[in-house]
This record gives sequence, C-alpha cells and structure tokens, in this order.
Amino acid sequence: MDRPIGLFDSGFGGLTVMKEVARLLPRENLIYLGDTVHLPYGNKSPETVVRFALENAAFLMGKNIKLLMIPCHTACCHALSILQEQLPIPVIGVIQPGLELVKNVRRIAILGTTSTIESDLYQTLIRKQNGKAIVSAKACPLFVPLIEEGFFNHPALDLIAESYLEPLKGNVDAALLACTHYPLIRSTLQKAFGPTVALMEPAERCALQAKAFLSKAGLLNLQNIKPTYEFFATDDPRKFRRLGELFFGNAIESVEKKQEFMKLF
Amino acid sequence: MDRPIGLFDSGFGGLTVMKEVARLLPRENLIYLGDTVHLPYGNKSPETVVRFALENAAFLMGKNIKLLMIPCHTACCHALSILQEQLPIPVIGVIQPGLELVKNVRRIAILGTTSTIESDLYQTLIRKQNGKAIVSAKACPLFVPLIEEGFFNHPALDLIAESYLEPLKGNVDAALLACTHYPLIRSTLQKAFGPTVALMEPAERCALQAKAFLSKAGLLNLQNIKPTYEFFATDDPRKFRRLGELFFGNAIESVEKKQEFMKLF
Repeated sequence: MDRPIGLFDSGFGGLTVMKEVARLLPRENLIYLGDTVHLPYGNKSPETVVRFALENAAFLMGKNIKLLMIPCHTACCHALSILQEQLPIPVIGVIQPGLELVKNVRRIAILGTTSTIESDLYQTLIRKQNGKAIVSAKACPLFVPLIEEGFFNHPALDLIAESYLEPLKGNVDAALLACTHYPLIRSTLQKAFGPTVALMEPAERCALQAKAFLSKAGLLNLQNIKPTYEFFATDDPRKFRRLGELFFGNAIESVEKKQEFMKLF
Repeated sequence: MDRPIGLFDSGFGGLTVMKEVARLLPRENLIYLGDTVHLPYGNKSPETVVRFALENAAFLMGKNIKLLMIPCHTACCHALSILQEQLPIPVIGVIQPGLELVKNVRRIAILGTTSTIESDLYQTLIRKQNGKAIVSAKACPLFVPLIEEGFFNHPALDLIAESYLEPLKGNVDAALLACTHYPLIRSTLQKAFGPTVALMEPAERCALQAKAFLSKAGLLNLQNIKPTYEFFATDDPRKFRRLGELFFGNAIESVEKKQEFMKLF
C-alpha cells in the first residue's frame, strides 16, 4: 500500500504534525498541502473555513491518498465531521487525540485561534467526556503571526502571552495547545503559565492514531524504501519552503504551486 | 452624477481613507468592499494580490461606479497600473498621493507590509522623483494583526515598534505610512521614532485627488441629499461591521456579504 497519506493546513502549523507522522510512520509517502493563499484560517468564518477545507480535500483526493489527516484545529472544528461523512476514505483530525490527552484533567484551558475558540467545540466535547471537568478557553490570535514572523524569543511575545494567559493562571491544571503553531512557543507558554501547568499537544497522538488505523486496515506501506514527501502550496512556493522548514524541522526539497481550482462535491 | 465611488481593500485599513473621502466629498455615494475572506494581502505573493484586486474591481464595476479608489498600498503596488490600464473608468490609488507628500524630504523611510516593501515600488519611484532622496524601507508585518486585535496601547506594540524602527532612527527626516492601518498607531510610531521625524499618510491627499478629478471631469454629485454608504465584505459581515467602525470612525449601518465569484477580464 504505497498510496500516500494526505495532510492539509492553512499554511505551516500542520507541518509540526507531519513531522511526527514522518517519525512514527517512516515508510509512508506523504503529501502536504499548505493553503497559504487563504491563510490564516483562524480569523475566518466557519462557512469560509469549510469551503477552503473542501477544496483542499478535493485536491488531495486527486492525488489518490489512502488516508486524509487534518493537522489544523480551526479546519477540524468546522469541517472534520463534514469531510468524514463525505469522503470515501478515512479522515483523522487533531480533535480526538486532543480529547484523549485531557480526559483525566480536572481544570483544563483550551488555547487556540479565534475561530477554534468561538466554535465552542472543544469546550463542549470536553465537558461531555468528563462531567467534572472545569473548562476555560482563550483565543490567542496574535501567536500565529508572531511565530510566522520569527518573534520566538522577543520580549513582546512574553508580554502578549502574559496578557492572554494571566486570567487563566491559578485556575488550570493543564492547557491543550489547540493550534498546531503553538508547540513552537512552548517555552514561552510554560513561562507564562508557570511550571505546574502541563502543556498538552496532540501531534504525536495524532500520528499514533494514523499508525493504528493503517495497521488495523492492512494499509501500512511495507516497502523498505525511502518514502517521498511532496509539498504543495496555494501561494508562493518559495516562501512556503523557507518558512516551512522551520515548522517541519527538516529540509523541504521542493514545493509545487497548486494551480487549479477543483471541486469534488 | 449620483453614480457611486467604489473603494476596495483587503479588509479594514481602507476605511481610514474612505473616512477622508466622506469628509471631503460629503455628497458622494460610496461603496466599499473589504476582501476579508482573503485578508491579509500583505503576506501574499504579487500574482495572488493581482488576482484578488481584479476580482474586487469586477465586483465594484458591476455596481456602476464612476471612479475606483484603491486605499490599500499592497494592492496598489501590484495591481494599480494593471487596473488603470484595463478599466474603462479612472482609478486612483494611494501611491501618487504618497509620493507627493514626500517629494521634498531628503531622508525618507517607507513603512509597509512585507509585500509592499518587497515590491520595491515606493523606493524606486521616490528615487526617480528626487535623485537626492535617501530612501530606507522597513516591512512591519505585525502591525496589522496587532491593530486588528486591538493592541493599540499595549506595551508589546511599543516593543515591536522599537524593534522595527530602531535601525532607522537618526537616519530619517520623515516616514511614509504606506499601509492604511498605520494611522491608527500613529502615536506609537511617533514615540518609537522620536519627535523630530514627520509621519506622513496619504489619506487626505488621496481624497483631495479624487475631488479634483471629479470636479474637473464634471462628475461631482451635486444633489443636496444625504449620500448612501454601502459596505460589502467577502467573509462574515458581522465581524466586518464590528471591526470596521473602529477604522471608519463612524457607525456602519449594515454590511452585505459579497457572494458570487465574478470575473470581468
């Protein structure tokens, strides 16, 4: 089964999940689509995010993928269930892995984009999973641009993190990083929360879920050759490559521009 | 001539120019399109910005406008000359008014989005206009999200402004605010530059240019009735209205969603 796994995100964050997939499924061929022409998703409306997600999925379906992964919390909050219903292949998002991570946490904070937090999906699902959970949520819309502009160690990032997280401090045992950019500023978040708050990110668990599914379905790639990683972007491929390597943590050999407008549904 | 003037921008910044147009041309009917589904333009590629600009212009042309104004520096840098060539009506951008403002300045700094600064258009045109001008340029990509998230008076904004402007300090007599968001953080920029640097923004001059053109062409609206202001957004109209009032400085009664995908060219 050398058909590839497809992944899409609004831009770069999803590469932090792809990195885990590459680590835990080192024989799988992967295709990643960054919808950079439409980034960011986090301040767009639900209907708009659904439309973008359908276009991205249609493009990847055209690449004959055996599994679709959506390493983007905003896209998952609005479009995961729609894609799971409509696509003829399985679709794995970052929501279920996140829920599993926090299932035994009593006081949990969700950090994400405005669109993710306003969807109220995590809050609802966590309360449903654990009736005793005390859930708070905070939209942190400036983290994505700060990260993409390379302000990782800038004191302004600390100040903004404090502004966002101050109201939560003292009231949480763990925070779910519900945006795939946030692992890149983990140390800043830990400093702002203090050392007693556990920071949880679903990347590894998401990759493990993909592995378990492929294994059970007999879809693992058993060929012992170096897998291929293909990258597509909907805007300038050079910029995608430059910024993408930071998130992927590895070299990105080449990026193609996705040209056509496709619709499957 | 009660046909409206059309204006478009990636989102909200252009409303700071529309405010001046409404002030100086108080009888004119205005139609504003905020392309919020694609915002921001400032980190997109030139080809992509051109495509968005053509779509926006096509929509406004369908509204029977007598004049198109483009109060967005990024869109002007990439698409103004194309639209001026292709449209059957006059098109006024923010570039010429900006050039006029700085024509007697010796050491001038351009502040704008990444896409505006990378286009090198202002730098080239200013040097062409004044062979003795010493031009520096600085992309300030975090200002737009900071402003849109309401961090006007946050100390993080000061720190980021200092980071951006520190390398320019002492070497400039005036700075051209080549992004229609920046007038909203004028006091921060003045503080970061120090009191001797003049901050120049083309909004008023752009509106005056429109007035002069309409007057000369006999296209002024002479009807003495309250003009209509129509607002369209390509994403969630409620969000546009909420944030838009901040930039427009006036109430925005209603916003319609631009639905269709149109192409005139």
